[in-house]
This record gives sequence, C-alpha cells and structure tokens, in this order.
Amino acid sequence: MQNFTYYVPTRIEFGTGKEQQIGAMMAAQGVRKVLLCYGSERIMHDGLFATVSQSLAAEGIELVAFGGIISNPVISKVREGIAVAREHQVDAILAVGGGSVLDSVKAMAAGVTYGGDVWDLFTGKGQFDSALPVYAVMTLAATGSEMNASAVVSNEDTHEKLFIGSVALYPKISVINPALTRSVPRDYLVYSAADIIAHSIEAYFTASQHPNLQSRLVESVIKTVIETTELLLANPQDDDARGQFAWAATLALNGITFAGAAGFSYPNHAIEHSLSALFNVPHGAGLSVVMPAWMKWYHSRNPQQFARFADKIFGVQGAEAGIAALEAWFVKIGTPVRLSQLGIKESDFAAITANVRGNVTGFGIADIYTEAVIGEILHNAL
Amino acid sequence: MQNFTYYVPTRIEFGTGKEQQIGAMMAAQGVRKVLLCYGSERIMHDGLFATVSQSLAAEGIELVAFGGIISNPVISKVREGIAVAREHQVDAILAVGGGSVLDSVKAMAAGVTYGGDVWDLFTGKGQFDSALPVYAVMTLAATGSEMNASAVVSNEDTHEKLFIGSVALYPKISVINPALTRSVPRDYLVYSAADIIAHSIEAYFTASQHPNLQSRLVESVIKTVIETTELLLANPQDDDARGQFAWAATLALNGITFAGAAGFSYPNHAIEHSLSALFNVPHGAGLSVVMPAWMKWYHSRNPQQFARFADKIFGVQGAEAGIAALEAWFVKIGTPVRLSQLGIKESDFAAITANVRGNVTGFGIADIYTEAVIGEILHNAL
Repeated sequence: MQNFTYYVPTRIEFGTGKEQQIGAMMAAQGVRKVLLCYGSERIMHDGLFATVSQSLAAEGIELVAFGGIISNPVISKVREGIAVAREHQVDAILAVGGGSVLDSVKAMAAGVTYGGDVWDLFTGKGQFDSALPVYAVMTLAATGSEMNASAVVSNEDTHEKLFIGSVALYPKISVINPALTRSVPRDYLVYSAADIIAHSIEAYFTASQHPNLQSRLVESVIKTVIETTELLLANPQDDDARGQFAWAATLALNGITFAGAAGFSYPNHAIEHSLSALFNVPHGAGLSVVMPAWMKWYHSRNPQQFARFADKIFGVQGAEAGIAALEAWFVKIGTPVRLSQLGIKESDFAAITANVRGNVTGFGIADIYTEAVIGEILHNAL
Repeated sequence: MQNFTYYVPTRIEFGTGKEQQIGAMMAAQGVRKVLLCYGSERIMHDGLFATVSQSLAAEGIELVAFGGIISNPVISKVREGIAVAREHQVDAILAVGGGSVLDSVKAMAAGVTYGGDVWDLFTGKGQFDSALPVYAVMTLAATGSEMNASAVVSNEDTHEKLFIGSVALYPKISVINPALTRSVPRDYLVYSAADIIAHSIEAYFTASQHPNLQSRLVESVIKTVIETTELLLANPQDDDARGQFAWAATLALNGITFAGAAGFSYPNHAIEHSLSALFNVPHGAGLSVVMPAWMKWYHSRNPQQFARFADKIFGVQGAEAGIAALEAWFVKIGTPVRLSQLGIKESDFAAITANVRGNVTGFGIADIYTEAVIGEILHNAL
C-alpha cells in the first residue's frame, strides 16, 4: 500500500425527491444568493428548473440563472459565468446538470476569487486555494465530478482540454436522484458506461502496485456498470439499476478505488482529451475507442492484471481475450470502438499526437508515451 | 437503492511515518492544547508516545496525557477524562490507540460540551450536536471508529454497552500507519478479523434490499480480510497485508458498503454487546462466537444472500456450507466459536437475554428478536 491522504468532505444526498430539499440544504449553510448554472433548456421543460428554483425561493435564496453550458465545456463560457457571478455578487454556485455543467461551475467558483484569467489555473500559470462554495443537482451519472475536487474544461482557442483540482472544489452538497437521469438519451447512457469504466481502469492497469483490496473495489464498480447498463438498455424504468449505475459512477472517481495504489497514470484520458479538444467528440465515446486500442498496446507490460481483468470481469482466460470481451461489449451496447466512427482519419494523427504530447505531465504519462507510441495506439483504433 | 445521506468529513492520513506529522496537522487546524488519551503503557515503551509528543511540541501544542483506557471501555473512565479535559481547558482530544481509546475520546469530546452526565447521551436522556474536535493515531485496525461518527462504551454499574453517534464525532484527522499495528498480539489480530467481518455482514444479510453493488463492496472487504489475516499469521512482517487489512477495517464501517441498502439491523452486535457488558469478553471474540450461531438461526430468512455469500467468499454451494466454512475459518485462525471458550454457560442465558432485550431499539432488532429467539441463537453457540 502506498501512503495516501483521503479527504472527501462532500455530502451526498442520494435518492428520490432530494432535489426538492436543495434550498433548505443550502440555506442551512448560509447561502443567500446563488448562480444556478445549467446546460440545455431541457430542465425548463421537464420541471426540474421549477422544482429547484421553488426550493430556493422557499428559503429566500436569490437566484441568478445561467444556461447554455455545452458538453466538452469551454473556457469562454466559464469566463462568461465568472463575469455574471461577480456582477450579481452571488455567494455560491449551483450546477443543475451533468459533469460538463458541474466542471464549468467548479472552474467559475475558482475563477471568481482568482484575480487573473481563469485559464491560468488550468495551465499552471496561476494558483488558487479558495473558491465560492459549489453545489450540484446531477442529471447525468458519468463523470464522478459530484464527489471529487477536479474539473475538466476545454480551451477553444488553444485546443487544449485540461483540468484543475483543489480541496476547495469539492461540492459542499451533491444531490444524486437517479430518477433525474431517466431523460438521458440512449447514446449518452452508453458513453457514460464507457466513461465510468475508463475511470476505473486507469489506476487498475497502470499502477506499479495495485493491492487486491483496491482491485476488488474496481471490479465491483465495473461489474455493476456492465450489469446495470444492460438492465437499463432493456428497461429504462429500472430505477434500482439506475441507482446502482449512478452510485458506481460516483465511487469510480471519488478516490476510494485507488487510494493506496502506487504510481499510476491516465493514458486513456490523455489521448481522449485530445480527441475531444480537436474534434469535439463526446468524452465517453472517445474513451470507448481509446481503451481497447490502448489495452492492446499496453497489456504485455502488466500481464497478470490484464489476465485478472479478463477472468474477474468477463470470465475469460488471458489478457487478449479480456480486451476482446470489453471491445465486444462496447459494440454490443452501441458505443464506438473505432476512430472512423468518430469521423477521425489517419491524416489527423499528427495533430492528435502533438496535442497529447503538449499535456503529458498532467496525466502522468511523460515517461513512455512518445509520439511513436501514441501513433501506435491510434493505429490500433483505426 | 434506498435514499441515503453520505457525509464523512474525516481526513485519513494513511501510511508510513504519518504519526510524525500529527502535530503539524493539528496546528494547521488551530489546536493549541490537547488531551492525549491512550490505553496501556505500551506506547511509553515502544516510542510512539515520544514520537507523538515531540510532533506536538514542535508545533507548540500543549499536551495533557491521560492513560489507562481499557478494552470494552467504561463510562467511569470517560467521566474522568471529561473532568481532566475541563480542568485543563484543552481545545481538542487526541486518541493514540485502538477503537476503545478512540471511542472513549469521542464520548469525552461530546461530554465536555454537554452540561449533564455523559451517560445521558448514550441512553437518550440527553442530546448533543457539538463536541471538542477529535483526532486519532490508530494502533489497532478493527473497529472502523477512525472514519465514522459513533462510539461504543460500557456502563459498569448498569451492565449496558451502548453507543452514541453524531456528525460532530467524526475525527477531524485519523492517522493510520499500518506499521503501528505490528505489536498487536496474535489473539487480537484474529479478534479484529472477526470484528471487521461482523461489521461487513450485518447489513449484507439483514437488509430488506441489498443491491449487487453494495454486496460486491462487502465481499471485497471480507475476501481481503480473510486473505490478509492468513498472510499476517504466516508473516507478521508483511506490511502490504497489514495495510490492506487496516484499510479494509476502515471501509467496513465508514458507510461505503451499506449506503443505499434498505432496512438493516445489527443483531450480532446486539447480542455480542451483552456478552461484553456482562462477561467482559473481547468484542471480536464475542462476535466470532455469535456470528455462526446467528447465521444458523437466520439464514432461511434470506436464503439467496446466504447462498451468494457461500459462493463468493468460500466457493462452496448453499447457505449451510457457507456458514460452516466461516466457522471453520474462525477455528483455523484461532478465534472462539463456542460460548464455553468465553467461559459462558447455559445458566447465564437468562441474564444475557434480558440484557439484549434491554437495548433492542438501538440495534434495530425490536421486531423478531424475542427472548425465545435470543435463547435459540445462544443455544446454537453452546
């Protein structure tokens, strides 16, 4: 076991109707005026905006609405949100949406208190250790942002997709009502499954030490995602499956599965972030393409763990059989496994490789991921 | 999935040498004067007291030492600690020890700010929602107290063993350096294994709904405990096994394995607390006696989950085979499985049964655990 610090002070409020209590929860923490951020206008039509705004109004919390945050959220929109937050002098920011909205909100929360341009915090040019309090009502289960301290945002000008992280960014309270994810379209459900699996496997496969306990926790999450994705594709009304899927998404990236693992990195995310930054592909769709391709290149470096994965997750023997089973499962649920399905060609590889190489340190892949290696992995995904 | 709130704001500092930083950690949180509580004088001889006190002194934190806390900690000692804490006007309490020391510290922390007698908080006669800040340096991995909000203490006069719980009792910081558990004697290692398994199985078997995700997390903990106990019995120097054992102990009772489970109770703990309260048996030793006896009585009420346990944990088929395998494993590691090994006779059953019945509500077993049922379970342990 590696030394670690585990500190996750987010309060999770999980279950039916919890979003109706968001006003009371925030008022109890002293919030008086909030910037409510969201993505599409869907929450205006399905009643969620009304529910949340009534809950806030009932406690006398003033609300400033800020919509239009897109998937693969962009820094220009974050800057816009920061300006609105400052103009209205809000004392907290509430995300109502999925990981893109929440990540944007975290960046805004840090940016409001930071003097310079918020992108400095992503590039390392600037530092921060405080932020406005962040709250969340989740409508998508995928990114785990609801119980962690980081945020990923793209810069449209520089074509970079980078992250920030700080204890200050843990949401104070995250509401996870699985029923709110019922309106997630089929394609985003399967992309989310790929995203959760990607969060689970990075440390599992790349750590120099990954104790059995942590491996078992990872396998618990992955098996649950596979099982509940299939249940939800068969019956979108299965709220128990929806609940387990949502909680698995949270556990996959709240640190519990990798605390104690040693020396791991995020190669799949490194490569996928470049696909998203350059071609605006959905994050989960990019990951389901990258993962099998990366595994085919990497598995001989950790054959025992890949054999374990094959056995524990799919009941098949041998690393290559396990990778094939994962790829087949992605095909079965309908998430892409080839770059061509994302509209990406071999002639794009040079740009992707250069983009990945620009951000290797943040993902811990400065060591073995040369341009040639990244090219080889991309070729595996052709 | 059942609605739940998950909020565990304890910071875990896990790993080699972390106890040397306890002073700096506490100073950063504003602590100036601390009551340092411990059990036996062992920490005076093995250097731990010196390490911790030097770490505190280096930060200018004043120290008042308070030793002599025993296993199955007693309320008279808690009252004594409260008096010392008040006399010296400490602003925090630090436990250096195992669950008994930490639970006593939590009770003191609540009792210092409460006006009346601290036992009122256990019986429900009194209420509290604030406490002195609690810190911990753990020397035993078993109870999970380092990452939860409850404490169990015995009253020697009334022969009750009861618990308190409050968000105010989460340790601010818990140091878990597995190497500090090296001096735990063999018998307490195996009692601890039984304790962790007991924490894991209560909700697993008794919940009216126990989703697959949560069942998998429980199984991950139990399999790890079985595996690492055997490794440690074979080689007490195996610090990786020691680390996994310690982290499994923490995860078994920090809520992560049962958040989302519905309607569960603590029958094994209910019965064992009476054994400890009346006969002062080690908690884990009592639990390894009670568990198989309880399982033999209970399994037909949840046959599917018992069959699952048999298969997943021991690779055997059928509830009874699984129970037999657990009992055999307890025998193998040398923790008791019969009341006679604890010096308890059939003539003691009336007193035990009456004691259990006195506290049924706290353990959620008011429903089916009549005197006759408790007697039947005890008979299974003869």
